[in-house]
Amino acid sequence: MINIKPPYLGCAYYPEDWPVEEIEKDAAKMKATGIQVARISEFAWSCMEKTEGVFTFDWLHNVVDTLAKYGIATVMGTPTATPPIWLSRKYPDVMQEYENGRRAQHGGRRHCCSNNEHYREYSARIVEKMAQEFADDENVIGWQIDNEIYAFGNGCMCPVCAEKFKQHLKEKFRTVDALNKAWNLTIFSQEYNFFDEIPTPRDGWINPHHRMEWKIFQQESIVEFVTMQAEILKKYVKVPVGTDVMPVNGMNYLHMNKKLDIVQFNHYNNPDNLSHCCLWFDFLRNVKDRPFWNTETSTCWNGSVNIPQSVKPEGFCYANSWLPIALGGEANMYWLWRTHWGGHEIMHGAVLDACGRPMHPYGEVKKLAKDYVRAGYFLNHTKVTTPIAIHYPSHSWNFFETQGIVQGFRYQDSVIQNYYEPITQRGLRPDLLEAAQDFSQYKVLSTPFVPSLENEGLGDRIRKWVENGGVWIVGPMTDNRNINGARYKDRPFGMLEEFLGVRWAYAVPDLNNDIKCQWVSGQPFTSRLWYELYEKDADALATVAEAPHNALVGKAVAIKKKIGKGVVFLLGTIPSADVMRGNILPLALDAAGLTTGHIGDSHNLMVARREGHGMTGVVVVEYQGKPGRYTLDKPAVELITARKLAGTIELKPYQVLVLQE
Amino acid sequence: MINIKPPYLGCAYYPEDWPVEEIEKDAAKMKATGIQVARISEFAWSCMEKTEGVFTFDWLHNVVDTLAKYGIATVMGTPTATPPIWLSRKYPDVMQEYENGRRAQHGGRRHCCSNNEHYREYSARIVEKMAQEFADDENVIGWQIDNEIYAFGNGCMCPVCAEKFKQHLKEKFRTVDALNKAWNLTIFSQEYNFFDEIPTPRDGWINPHHRMEWKIFQQESIVEFVTMQAEILKKYVKVPVGTDVMPVNGMNYLHMNKKLDIVQFNHYNNPDNLSHCCLWFDFLRNVKDRPFWNTETSTCWNGSVNIPQSVKPEGFCYANSWLPIALGGEANMYWLWRTHWGGHEIMHGAVLDACGRPMHPYGEVKKLAKDYVRAGYFLNHTKVTTPIAIHYPSHSWNFFETQGIVQGFRYQDSVIQNYYEPITQRGLRPDLLEAAQDFSQYKVLSTPFVPSLENEGLGDRIRKWVENGGVWIVGPMTDNRNINGARYKDRPFGMLEEFLGVRWAYAVPDLNNDIKCQWVSGQPFTSRLWYELYEKDADALATVAEAPHNALVGKAVAIKKKIGKGVVFLLGTIPSADVMRGNILPLALDAAGLTTGHIGDSHNLMVARREGHGMTGVVVVEYQGKPGRYTLDKPAVELITARKLAGTIELKPYQVLVLQE
Amino acid sequence: MINIKPPYLGCAYYPEDWPVEEIEKDAAKMKATGIQVARISEFAWSCMEKTEGVFTFDWLHNVVDTLAKYGIATVMGTPTATPPIWLSRKYPDVMQEYENGRRAQHGGRRHCCSNNEHYREYSARIVEKMAQEFADDENVIGWQIDNEIYAFGNGCMCPVCAEKFKQHLKEKFRTVDALNKAWNLTIFSQEYNFFDEIPTPRDGWINPHHRMEWKIFQQESIVEFVTMQAEILKKYVKVPVGTDVMPVNGMNYLHMNKKLDIVQFNHYNNPDNLSHCCLWFDFLRNVKDRPFWNTETSTCWNGSVNIPQSVKPEGFCYANSWLPIALGGEANMYWLWRTHWGGHEIMHGAVLDACGRPMHPYGEVKKLAKDYVRAGYFLNHTKVTTPIAIHYPSHSWNFFETQGIVQGFRYQDSVIQNYYEPITQRGLRPDLLEAAQDFSQYKVLSTPFVPSLENEGLGDRIRKWVENGGVWIVGPMTDNRNINGARYKDRPFGMLEEFLGVRWAYAVPDLNNDIKCQWVSGQPFTSRLWYELYEKDADALATVAEAPHNALVGKAVAIKKKIGKGVVFLLGTIPSADVMRGNILPLALDAAGLTTGHIGDSHNLMVARREGHGMTGVVVVEYQGKPGRYTLDKPAVELITARKLAGTIELKPYQVLVLQE
Repeated sequence: MINIKPPYLGCAYYPEDWPVEEIEKDAAKMKATGIQVARISEFAWSCMEKTEGVFTFDWLHNVVDTLAKYGIATVMGTPTATPPIWLSRKYPDVMQEYENGRRAQHGGRRHCCSNNEHYREYSARIVEKMAQEFADDENVIGWQIDNEIYAFGNGCMCPVCAEKFKQHLKEKFRTVDALNKAWNLTIFSQEYNFFDEIPTPRDGWINPHHRMEWKIFQQESIVEFVTMQAEILKKYVKVPVGTDVMPVNGMNYLHMNKKLDIVQFNHYNNPDNLSHCCLWFDFLRNVKDRPFWNTETSTCWNGSVNIPQSVKPEGFCYANSWLPIALGGEANMYWLWRTHWGGHEIMHGAVLDACGRPMHPYGEVKKLAKDYVRAGYFLNHTKVTTPIAIHYPSHSWNFFETQGIVQGFRYQDSVIQNYYEPITQRGLRPDLLEAAQDFSQYKVLSTPFVPSLENEGLGDRIRKWVENGGVWIVGPMTDNRNINGARYKDRPFGMLEEFLGVRWAYAVPDLNNDIKCQWVSGQPFTSRLWYELYEKDADALATVAEAPHNALVGKAVAIKKKIGKGVVFLLGTIPSADVMRGNILPLALDAAGLTTGHIGDSHNLMVARREGHGMTGVVVVEYQGKPGRYTLDKPAVELITARKLAGTIELKPYQVLVLQE
Repeated sequence: MINIKPPYLGCAYYPEDWPVEEIEKDAAKMKATGIQVARISEFAWSCMEKTEGVFTFDWLHNVVDTLAKYGIATVMGTPTATPPIWLSRKYPDVMQEYENGRRAQHGGRRHCCSNNEHYREYSARIVEKMAQEFADDENVIGWQIDNEIYAFGNGCMCPVCAEKFKQHLKEKFRTVDALNKAWNLTIFSQEYNFFDEIPTPRDGWINPHHRMEWKIFQQESIVEFVTMQAEILKKYVKVPVGTDVMPVNGMNYLHMNKKLDIVQFNHYNNPDNLSHCCLWFDFLRNVKDRPFWNTETSTCWNGSVNIPQSVKPEGFCYANSWLPIALGGEANMYWLWRTHWGGHEIMHGAVLDACGRPMHPYGEVKKLAKDYVRAGYFLNHTKVTTPIAIHYPSHSWNFFETQGIVQGFRYQDSVIQNYYEPITQRGLRPDLLEAAQDFSQYKVLSTPFVPSLENEGLGDRIRKWVENGGVWIVGPMTDNRNINGARYKDRPFGMLEEFLGVRWAYAVPDLNNDIKCQWVSGQPFTSRLWYELYEKDADALATVAEAPHNALVGKAVAIKKKIGKGVVFLLGTIPSADVMRGNILPLALDAAGLTTGHIGDSHNLMVARREGHGMTGVVVVEYQGKPGRYTLDKPAVELITARKLAGTIELKPYQVLVLQE
Repeated sequence: MINIKPPYLGCAYYPEDWPVEEIEKDAAKMKATGIQVARISEFAWSCMEKTEGVFTFDWLHNVVDTLAKYGIATVMGTPTATPPIWLSRKYPDVMQEYENGRRAQHGGRRHCCSNNEHYREYSARIVEKMAQEFADDENVIGWQIDNEIYAFGNGCMCPVCAEKFKQHLKEKFRTVDALNKAWNLTIFSQEYNFFDEIPTPRDGWINPHHRMEWKIFQQESIVEFVTMQAEILKKYVKVPVGTDVMPVNGMNYLHMNKKLDIVQFNHYNNPDNLSHCCLWFDFLRNVKDRPFWNTETSTCWNGSVNIPQSVKPEGFCYANSWLPIALGGEANMYWLWRTHWGGHEIMHGAVLDACGRPMHPYGEVKKLAKDYVRAGYFLNHTKVTTPIAIHYPSHSWNFFETQGIVQGFRYQDSVIQNYYEPITQRGLRPDLLEAAQDFSQYKVLSTPFVPSLENEGLGDRIRKWVENGGVWIVGPMTDNRNINGARYKDRPFGMLEEFLGVRWAYAVPDLNNDIKCQWVSGQPFTSRLWYELYEKDADALATVAEAPHNALVGKAVAIKKKIGKGVVFLLGTIPSADVMRGNILPLALDAAGLTTGHIGDSHNLMVARREGHGMTGVVVVEYQGKPGRYTLDKPAVELITARKLAGTIELKPYQVLVLQE
């Protein structure tokens, strides 16, 4: 039996791609490199069931055994993303229908309809067969369901989905009149008399609530499909089961992972957007009470038929591979071990080139294998902790995808630039939260761009938490819609005016940066794009100084209110990163009785404090390829180098410190 | 009975959107604001006939009565833009067919085929029912047919349209051989043997004459549909009937309004393109002998699911609301009174926000209500007058949409920038004319970009008018095509060479601004993009000074010819605004014995001289948000402020003067 | 019988466009202009067979006779690009199917499926009828099959093509398993069990090998269709038969011209890209052992419904018309004689305007007619000769269209900018070669961007040629794929490492120009985008000096190897034009014992040395509209001006010298 310990360094491997003698060579090279885990088989359905009902697993057992011979554990993937040709020949309706009415063709992946009964039936069978085959193989240390599964674009528009969507609406709204009212369908005479009349939202001018509900339905259909597989697998296997997500869409990852054991996910961020994957690490580590697996990242570049990127700098692969480990994961795996010699994704970067020779970042991979081991004990016995959280619900994503509010607003970008990064730049670590998650343990909570506080009872829960002493940073674009994404008819907000004792005046866009605000002290308050303006009162922090229209001048854009034992910072606009990091965050931390972060440190560090088993410490990753500066709270041992450190440390580009205090 | 007088301040209102108790509150607020007219019901078919053949008008009577209770008159809209779901479920063929072969889906608007018999039949029935219900309601002061109706893009491509188009061609060309000849279909072996073979122009490389005829056919189909409704309404109602047009397509508005009583139209121009709606005001006021209604404009911004614009400056709403009144209208109505709380167009600006509170331009609306009243008597008893006109026929639009002549040429933009604005910038007011309209009363007529003078016998009519003393500014791109948009085989122009005694040499494009022209004096003559060059003669005004090709140098680009009692200014190129305003226009006005406009005034004013009932005066609107200067011809009373003015007046941004001499 | 001699000045003419009396006038004007040849009838099927099976050729005989009366010869076109309406009405399946599943409509051209049996049958019949009619007409001096025929975009996707593609695959791969292996279809479970399952590559994520094979199949289908026509024509006619190609796609022109007598082709290059047509002249003159015909070019501009270009400079038409003659052709023909008066392509430039008057470049055309005659004897008795060649195979085009390798790489542009132009800028003339062509006579051969040396046994043929003394410039992106476009599993190159004794290290993209190279002397070596890096050895010419990743620094990018009697210059990157012209080319010429070109001359000349019948000389064309400088090798007579020249000559923009030594 294989004896490996986290953090796992791994890779995706495609034995179906190579002659059998190459597989053993590859396994030997993996071992020499320090690879501990290989993920296999997630597209190999046709190799297991080339003809309907005829199953062939010998070759796959051989692969697992060969890997094990070199000390390499296997993560087994269910191959449902790519069914064999006989399935779509027998049942053409398994293929997704595009918005234009055409069906996908065989040859790609994730192109079947997850709601299709034939697809589900044959998927269930191959999953069960695999589970039976490999449940007892102790070299298989985990399972991955399907691959990067989510409803792409507007999802599948086939008749099965159309029918199921009507069913979904019936369950949600009970009566068609309730739906007509919820979506305001008297407008344009759109109202329906029967659920059966409601079309798939395409080919025309679509009601935004209709479109949002469709997106939610499509994502929940995916959850159903994954859950079906999870239930089958878990009848047989004891090792953890997950599904490797590409977290880029309005999927509810609490729903997705309900029946799963472990969060798996994939990212392909680049030097210019590396904080995006950190955001997702900070989100996903909270989904399950177990370290996540970073199941895919690239050593150097992506590529289907061409390479769309330049060579990445020395050290990028190293720091990129440390980030998931630093922020709460226990595995980092590359896609892929060895570049395909032909066919799809032939230009993708890997550990080895197609001809079996190392690609240029090979040295970084080898160093990682060693450094993971050095820090392993500390990492495996501690967890990331923080008193700060940001709401980041899938409902917001689906809302802003279907109601943009103002031209140029991008939900995720605004969360990152104006809330997430200002916090991390101060050496602090936020948890990102779905609406349903408990937040009672946090001292400071930020809720930007959450149009509906009806979602999972957020409004009432936050109200109580604030009254009990929570410090809440709220707005803009929060609480101005009901759960269906419609406005309140009698008030601008669901609860904010009443809860905070403020009065909203106007909401206006500012595409041209014409509006200038100032703190009550007269200092500039930089912000952008969207303004919810309030009547000024004694608690105003900042107001409009200049505006194209006189009615706006003097109105409040930021207000601080003491509520019960808590404090609320109400923002009517999107604060600049400087205002958030330099002003609002310190005020909020101070109100919460927290220290205000690492003020003298550079902004290019991801810093995660860890605790557990009586140990404390910090992991620091320079992630922008620039020199950095970090000041230790206490003297510590840096575990990679086994040096004792104290005071202020100068980091090199992409340097990593694992500091045990 | 309601007692209101023009100019009407009004708004669109959607009672189907709100609880009944809110309607009375809204009516009260309208009254307090100074709103006199509400336009309702134009999308409310499903509220009147939710089930086929079951009509419900009580709620609508209640709305009219409630509004009337607060002194507010109603304009009633026929709801044919948005049929209920039962209609398209029963007859799926009522839905438009897109160019890609798919049908529109329920949920949008203006998505039915105006040629479809079922759609026409059910439309006729609901219109007749409404007419019967409200014909005797004296609180209903006018009707609007459908909403913003025109053939969008290439129109509907369903089988009904395909068939009717063949019929249209048969009626127009009589024999298929005549059509083959007219469209030069021997090229590419395109010629047809039977009308039945002629396809809807899509999916391939389309003959431009074919495409133009299709566009004309589609627009005329819309005219038929509107006319059908007008004939029904006028069997019952005595108040004026119109249809609110979005005048952005090659519709012939003389045809459209033939059976209508009143021109209604909608515009959503912004600070940067406000002269565009003025062009249309100057066009549409001449269509019927009755002041038009501006049935829609926005108080602050458009918006479907997001707001695509910034806050407009203080005063914009005010000046924008005065422009239609100044230029010949008697109503200005906002879309909409109160922002929808859900569904379509949820982000559109209004007078009130969805929650019922005023939006930021509210103060301007209130001021307008008062100022309209102050100037009302003078405005209601005078009309805009002018001795200058510009041809602006729908045929040109359809021609240039299907034959662009030269890359970068935009018909409407060139008319505005190079002809219309230079005239208005001089404090003059042009009438814009369709081809069929009488122009005998004008002293100066400009005919730019009118490829076919065969259209409505323009060539012969202009010839006589010039010989009788008219001053004609003609060209470029005028008279170089026959009525089908084809060239003459034996001459470059239909009549210009023979009429003017000139000889055309070459026509060339100038995308890179390589060609430089000069007046015969040697001064620069600025122009652009397109050059029809003539052999130089004694009457040449300007010639080519520099060109990439030697053959072009020295040819004439502008020639002045005395013809009978008249004078013709022949332009071979698109003159710059400076050349038109500073040189050609003064020459033409001088030749016509007219004064040459307000030379010392600023260019940012729309000025309209009015006469009637023994009164004369001028309305001046600063429309660019900049300071302005205007010199009175005579002392006058400014009616908004009741001050006596004389000499040169300095205007503030967006200021309006109503000057009664 | 007509007595004309090359170089032919000609034009396309559309008698079906004009009244019969205009045809005689046009013929007289052609004669006056110096036009010797008119190409007619290539779209006139409907005039010959307006009703199925009823043939009318009298009108066409009259046209040929009328032209002949004025001394003008005819080139006859087969009209298969534009079948009459009755054909597609009878057999709708003759129309191409677009990628979106819709069929093309009647009214365009080249919109039928070349694989359709009905289309082939009716095409064969009209071609045979024409051949029978005109075989004995001695005024017909040549034939053109169809017009600008190639598989546009991804070609036709109709069921006939789908079926024939499967047949094509079966013939090529024999077993479906061989295909599965060749395309690596185990990836994504794409493998097929039966040929019948393989879809037309659309609607999804397509395997690149699948896509490439489809492109090849589509082009070969066109070859079949042209060959069918050629075989019919050659049963009857004795004069040369060709097809006028628009050489812009991955067509194999050796295949295309196998059964043809003469290469005909069309180009519409502009001042900014005139070297592109020269590249094609240098390619196509080698396809048949007979001077080619430039069957179409424009006098001034293109234009369908609008003109997309500006006026071209004085002299451009003249130089553009000389280039094909200078580089190995014997005809230059304009499209078209007289602009269409209506319908398709109504804005295209011509010799005469639609109204029959000269367009502005007319004087240049007239001068050309005279100057061709002056140089005719020399040109007709000599041929272009050169010791230098560049590989330019259609396989490379199809490969790079389906596998881009690196973002921003454009195959043709890179060949032109980095290989072709540097050679021509030195006053040298390269031959461009398909893979199958013999290259034994050349001293220097360049093989850039030829991924597969398996193509036509290139690898083995080059190996022998080098060993026998050839000087080979090879790379980058050469020899790294097998014939199917897949990688080798066990080595980075097919033969290069073994043949040259080098070792490849890494291949990396460089989109941001981060990598800097240097000659071993330390001088900068400028290059771009793509790097195949080798382990440095004693033969290295240049290495990486700076790179984002340390593993790359110091690796070799250019290596010189002596192999047998020959020399190989191995390039791992795309050299800048300066490096190619100033360094690599001189080294290679020197190694081949050739003089190193005209070093003091300007770069804006196309220079072609000619030999034959005991005469030698050079044609020099200034093609960039700038002054030029050329130094004669020997004293010579300039035949256009009949002056004796020696030493260094200063050329005016667009000047042409025909120098007989």
